[in-house]
Amino acid sequence: MRIGIDLGGTHTAAAIVDESGSIIKRAETPTDISGGAETVIAGLLYVCGSLMGVGTEVVDHYDPQPKIQPAGGFPQSIGIGVPGTVDAEKGEVIFAPNLPLKGVNITRELQKKYACPVRLGNDANCAALGETVAGGAKGAKDVVLITLGTGIGGGIIIGGNLHTGVSGAAGELGHMVITAGGRQCGCGRKGCWETYASASGLKKTADEIMKANADSLLWKLCDSDAEKVNGRIVFEAYRGGDGAAREIVEQYIEQLAAGIANLINILEPEMICVGGGISNEWESISKLLLARVDAERFPRASDQSPQTRIVRATLSNDAGIIGAAML
Amino acid sequence: MRIGIDLGGTHTAAAIVDESGSIIKRAETPTDISGGAETVIAGLLYVCGSLMGVGTEVVDHYDPQPKIQPAGGFPQSIGIGVPGTVDAEKGEVIFAPNLPLKGVNITRELQKKYACPVRLGNDANCAALGETVAGGAKGAKDVVLITLGTGIGGGIIIGGNLHTGVSGAAGELGHMVITAGGRQCGCGRKGCWETYASASGLKKTADEIMKANADSLLWKLCDSDAEKVNGRIVFEAYRGGDGAAREIVEQYIEQLAAGIANLINILEPEMICVGGGISNEWESISKLLLARVDAERFPRASDQSPQTRIVRATLSNDAGIIGAAML
Repeated sequence: MRIGIDLGGTHTAAAIVDESGSIIKRAETPTDISGGAETVIAGLLYVCGSLMGVGTEVVDHYDPQPKIQPAGGFPQSIGIGVPGTVDAEKGEVIFAPNLPLKGVNITRELQKKYACPVRLGNDANCAALGETVAGGAKGAKDVVLITLGTGIGGGIIIGGNLHTGVSGAAGELGHMVITAGGRQCGCGRKGCWETYASASGLKKTADEIMKANADSLLWKLCDSDAEKVNGRIVFEAYRGGDGAAREIVEQYIEQLAAGIANLINILEPEMICVGGGISNEWESISKLLLARVDAERFPRASDQSPQTRIVRATLSNDAGIIGAAML
Repeated sequence: MRIGIDLGGTHTAAAIVDESGSIIKRAETPTDISGGAETVIAGLLYVCGSLMGVGTEVVDHYDPQPKIQPAGGFPQSIGIGVPGTVDAEKGEVIFAPNLPLKGVNITRELQKKYACPVRLGNDANCAALGETVAGGAKGAKDVVLITLGTGIGGGIIIGGNLHTGVSGAAGELGHMVITAGGRQCGCGRKGCWETYASASGLKKTADEIMKANADSLLWKLCDSDAEKVNGRIVFEAYRGGDGAAREIVEQYIEQLAAGIANLINILEPEMICVGGGISNEWESISKLLLARVDAERFPRASDQSPQTRIVRATLSNDAGIIGAAML
């Protein structure tokens, strides 16, 4: 048994996870940043204590000698996924834009309490590990997880291990330029994949195409307020046969496929696993997406050659918890 | 001691390589495709026999029981780099556009003669391994080699091992689209990196910019024949202060940097090692290139964070031989 923790900017979710990646018991708490690192760590101690059944009161002073003895013994390890870059070796957060943890050694703080190894990872990387252990990419050794959310996150597994990069920042898949000089990205570049293929990118495309189609069903579905358009509305109109929505979805899939084909041509993993909010529309997009990727990927040597499979992520928010447990 | 062979479309180059990656003794022969796989394999037996000093006459019939006993013993292994996709496990060539080896199990043919393991790899992958063992990326564990030639080839080393992909076709770095809808690529896609950042891409850019600059020094350097323009001429004019050449080189570096920054954002390797013909212009391009990549790569978490180093490949054509020996 291991403990996995998904430390989010607003919410800390944790669970006891067994060897197969199944969740046995859960605990959660709001992430409290009001007291800086101390209250965030208090939340981690709270969920761990709660899961181990050792009480959760020990949050404001640390005991250098772990004296807690959970009845069921300590877990084999505790893993924490953090939304930012980490130094996994030191157990230190390098940078987490939404958490007051810059330079904080989280693992040391937990180690003071618990007699088991504590490990740190990036949250998107943890999600990739989770999907590989127990989700859509189960059993594969080389996997790229693509998370289509507000941005595009990613995690890369090579030979069954996380590939984290020289500073822990590998897998910034969304910041691969696919249209040089294109849409301005928050990272400073222009034409990054996430400006097109994330949920925000889809919204931007929808905005552009709606404005050229005054008669589109989309206007009705968002109460004539273009600000309200989002992925769900676009796909609803698409399924309703709206022409503008079809144009948006086709353009979106083309741009999503461009990045996926790039990743195949570079890494040719066994599987590319697609998660995040937009993967909820898998039934609407998968057929077109797979055909488009097939047309774009580097020609296969022969029809018998194995090729990268593109699958849907299946664990949703649990991927990060399960992957953290497996760190 | 190991033997490494770079099996090219026109030339087969081999060497005995020591543990440190130094070349001890060389042998070479034209690649003879006139008799199909048989004459190509005869060439491999010729260079091996010559390096082991066991005679080279045994090329037209195979003996199922290796009877050869080289005075110095067999090498620890023989490795062969092939310009195409291979099934390394089976020792079989899957597809090599310029060689009559499709479906041929090369390693079995050599194994009939020599009592040592025989291994197969892709030539660009071998070059990456060679640069990592003994060249520009020596000592690094995670390396991307970019070869800027007629196209853009590549090889990826993760954790000290070649990453070959599910069908052996990983590392097709040149077929990463950086400008969706851009220049037509031979692979079928539009806007592939190699249509801009290979030697052919540079020539195309030069062609476009020359035609808009009738007074450029470039016209003089290529005898007023735009067909004759090439990388060497562009860089000569660039160093001579020609404005059109500067425009070409700046545009070229921007496009080269876009792909390199993409690879950093995806893989964040310890090193990116740049080889191929255009790397001969390293002194003219490196300063601008590094500055441009620095502006494009995902912002570092802190100034102290380690980051991907961009270095020049140093082994030239020997990289493939040395890497093959290390397979």
